[in-house]
Amino acid sequence: MSDNKNYFNEILEFMGKIKDLRSALALLMWDQETYIPKGAHTSRANQITTLESLIHSQLISKEAKNLFDVVEKCKLNCSISEQQHLKLFSEELERAFKIPSKFIKELSIVKSEALDKWKQARSESNYSIFKNIFAKLIEMKIQEAEFIGFKENPYDAFLNLYEPGSSVRMIDPLFNELKIETIQLLKSVKNQHENITYNFLYKYYSADGQSKMSRFIAESIGFNYINGRFDFSVHPITLALDPKDVRLTTKINVKDLRLCLFSTIHETGHGIYEQGIDSSLYRTFAAEAASIGIHESQSLIWENMICKTLEFSEWVLPHLKRFFPDNLKHVSHFDFYKAINKIQPSLIRSQSDELTYNLHIILRYELENALLNNKLSVSDLQEAWNEKMRDYLGLIPESPLYGCLQDIHWAFGDVGYFPSYTLGKLYAATMWKYLRKDLKNIFKDISDGNFISIKEWLADKVHRHGKMLTADDIIRRISGEPLSASDFIDYITKKCDRIIEN
Amino acid sequence: MSDNKNYFNEILEFMGKIKDLRSALALLMWDQETYIPKGAHTSRANQITTLESLIHSQLISKEAKNLFDVVEKCKLNCSISEQQHLKLFSEELERAFKIPSKFIKELSIVKSEALDKWKQARSESNYSIFKNIFAKLIEMKIQEAEFIGFKENPYDAFLNLYEPGSSVRMIDPLFNELKIETIQLLKSVKNQHENITYNFLYKYYSADGQSKMSRFIAESIGFNYINGRFDFSVHPITLALDPKDVRLTTKINVKDLRLCLFSTIHETGHGIYEQGIDSSLYRTFAAEAASIGIHESQSLIWENMICKTLEFSEWVLPHLKRFFPDNLKHVSHFDFYKAINKIQPSLIRSQSDELTYNLHIILRYELENALLNNKLSVSDLQEAWNEKMRDYLGLIPESPLYGCLQDIHWAFGDVGYFPSYTLGKLYAATMWKYLRKDLKNIFKDISDGNFISIKEWLADKVHRHGKMLTADDIIRRISGEPLSASDFIDYITKKCDRIIEN
Repeated sequence: MSDNKNYFNEILEFMGKIKDLRSALALLMWDQETYIPKGAHTSRANQITTLESLIHSQLISKEAKNLFDVVEKCKLNCSISEQQHLKLFSEELERAFKIPSKFIKELSIVKSEALDKWKQARSESNYSIFKNIFAKLIEMKIQEAEFIGFKENPYDAFLNLYEPGSSVRMIDPLFNELKIETIQLLKSVKNQHENITYNFLYKYYSADGQSKMSRFIAESIGFNYINGRFDFSVHPITLALDPKDVRLTTKINVKDLRLCLFSTIHETGHGIYEQGIDSSLYRTFAAEAASIGIHESQSLIWENMICKTLEFSEWVLPHLKRFFPDNLKHVSHFDFYKAINKIQPSLIRSQSDELTYNLHIILRYELENALLNNKLSVSDLQEAWNEKMRDYLGLIPESPLYGCLQDIHWAFGDVGYFPSYTLGKLYAATMWKYLRKDLKNIFKDISDGNFISIKEWLADKVHRHGKMLTADDIIRRISGEPLSASDFIDYITKKCDRIIEN
Repeated sequence: MSDNKNYFNEILEFMGKIKDLRSALALLMWDQETYIPKGAHTSRANQITTLESLIHSQLISKEAKNLFDVVEKCKLNCSISEQQHLKLFSEELERAFKIPSKFIKELSIVKSEALDKWKQARSESNYSIFKNIFAKLIEMKIQEAEFIGFKENPYDAFLNLYEPGSSVRMIDPLFNELKIETIQLLKSVKNQHENITYNFLYKYYSADGQSKMSRFIAESIGFNYINGRFDFSVHPITLALDPKDVRLTTKINVKDLRLCLFSTIHETGHGIYEQGIDSSLYRTFAAEAASIGIHESQSLIWENMICKTLEFSEWVLPHLKRFFPDNLKHVSHFDFYKAINKIQPSLIRSQSDELTYNLHIILRYELENALLNNKLSVSDLQEAWNEKMRDYLGLIPESPLYGCLQDIHWAFGDVGYFPSYTLGKLYAATMWKYLRKDLKNIFKDISDGNFISIKEWLADKVHRHGKMLTADDIIRRISGEPLSASDFIDYITKKCDRIIEN
């Protein structure tokens, strides 16, 4: 075997070990959300910190550096797929090398204080408690962007972490177009939807019924219990230890059927993606989603495009009546379809409908971008938030609890993550358009509860590739073009009409 | 702060990190026995191997070596408890330094092959399939003993791993006395117990009833669900991530009430020990059992001494009748007491009663000792086994499945572990003797289902100390003497009589 081949195998083995450790980390996190004893939360936090820092120390170890130094030589007689593995390996190591360990420790202390202050600020409904530490955090994020490096805008450094290859230059026009069209559409839709009844979704639905329902729905749309688990937690999550060990959770609220039903479908979409990654990529850095946005597209295409169709309502309603014999007796699938699709602006992002959700994201995107470019001061954040909320959604939060303190992301130091949610919607709309072109019987299949062809289409175009393709590759291979906002605008406009027609 | 104090804190932090990683490892193992998806077993094996080898590499790292080198200096102005922490730290590192990494890898390959061959040998009931690889394994264990080091007997190197401070010189007289007395006692008891009825323990007992029963029993005798969990698995185990996260499992067989009841009590004994370790020892190497034998003593004192009394039967039977309303209707607590205590020699160690169990262990101890000292060849093992079995228990296995292939320990490369089971019985008998002296109302308490004073006594004498005391310290503090076999012989002789009297 040539030296290069040996090196390549060593690099693969190194990635395998990192992946094993990340799987162990994922298990610690999954257990924390599901089966951990009450008394063990403090020790769990220590275990997670230790394992995270150990993984980091492996990435910046001498062994890693030695392998990093032979990557260029290795690439010379490698296949294209091997080259992609080497690229992912280099990128991961570069990111780890770039940020000094001392800075990571300092940042982690500030983050931890930010989280405490955010909780305190929420309990007192007072943004100013969070303000100073958040200013410090933003200052450090600007420093972090310098470490990571960027061409045009410090915000790009973070966008790239979640959405490799993206930038303000790419996102700005998409989000601007989407914002204008959404605000316009919302004006006409708001009144039309006002009279849609959805109270029957918020009657008493037994925990046992919801538990059976969610397991049934996950399996029906394609989640595989041989290579995964389905449990219940306070926050619905998907954690993949590897493609053969994918763990979903959903949340049960006995007075909210919609929450459990659509959280389940959402997480199942994520789970089917993780389970669909080709087994040849196991224990490599390519055994992951192409980007956070692509990951979101896989939950959203199921949650919104497929499972909020009239045909899905037609299929699912008899099953729901089976799980909840006393509820939904006089509800038709038209009623159900309208109820789950009702457009109604909300102050809270996580409770928003398919149309207005994007305005919440665009608002956060604009604020983050302004903060990182010193165009907005943390002191003025609350007012800026409220102003945009009024302009975009026509609502003004009476308390920062329903305003700029509602999300945990900033308190965690996560900046640049939000845009992936809306990019996910745009990716999903484009996929939905071409999926419908390719699968002629799709609506018939959905009303029959036959989801195999959809799952196979997504597996072929998206899942199996893992990180061997970028988000841009995936979209161009589907549509022949880079991502645009028009497929989503077209989709949501038609859908808003259709809801009223039925 | 002085330099020494700084070093001491660094050593504590180092131990804390190792403990965190071992907790993560314990979670991987617990999950493997309980909630892992079927498809994930191969990837789990990789994760466990990676984490184990990473922990080892931390123990032999330059950082560890640097800390090891300052231990002697550190000890100078340390308290006694700090010195014990430093001692445990040094011992752990020494063990890791002594065995070359290359040897560990080779041994792990041989172990893995041994496990395969053992499985194959079992499926074909043919010891000779296992023989050659086992000979290789024994050869490597002799080499390993040389690496670890010993004064008199290579077997001591392994005995010390599980029972620090023990040796063939210490164990030989104990086991010889026990063997002679047991064989003698068995002769008279065997016939006396022949007519005891126990069929009612092997009727159909519903899984649901057993599940409720086992959770109730564990809680009643003192397991704390705030700092632990209770689940079900094929092999009952106790895995402690730390004293606030202790996880028990038990096994349900719907045709065997005894198995679930006493597995539950056994594992609960282990679990109460782990939960009782003083919180000041958290994240140190002292936050562990004093020895495997002491760990066993804590399961056995509950399983045999406390929960096989007539008084326990008196308390537990009405509860069992509650969980299984259709069974046990005409069974009195005298019947129950006799049935669970019936002495009946068996070929299988794990199915043996309180008296004959030790003969199984002594047989294995003698064979292991002979193998490691080249006084017995692997080729002659099966015959030697069968001969001893005939001499000690009066039984001859018709197949090696019920003979020398019955335990997985040797296939795992575990040599020197078995004696801890019997040492555990001897420790437990001494504890039981002094516990009864200290707690005047103990039998009344047991028949009332009040186990608090017992738990507190054990916590005070054993649990809270973790590894701050050795097994020998613990026993001497209780009895004023080193371990002897006489307390157990005395206990079991009286018990055998009592069973017949009632």
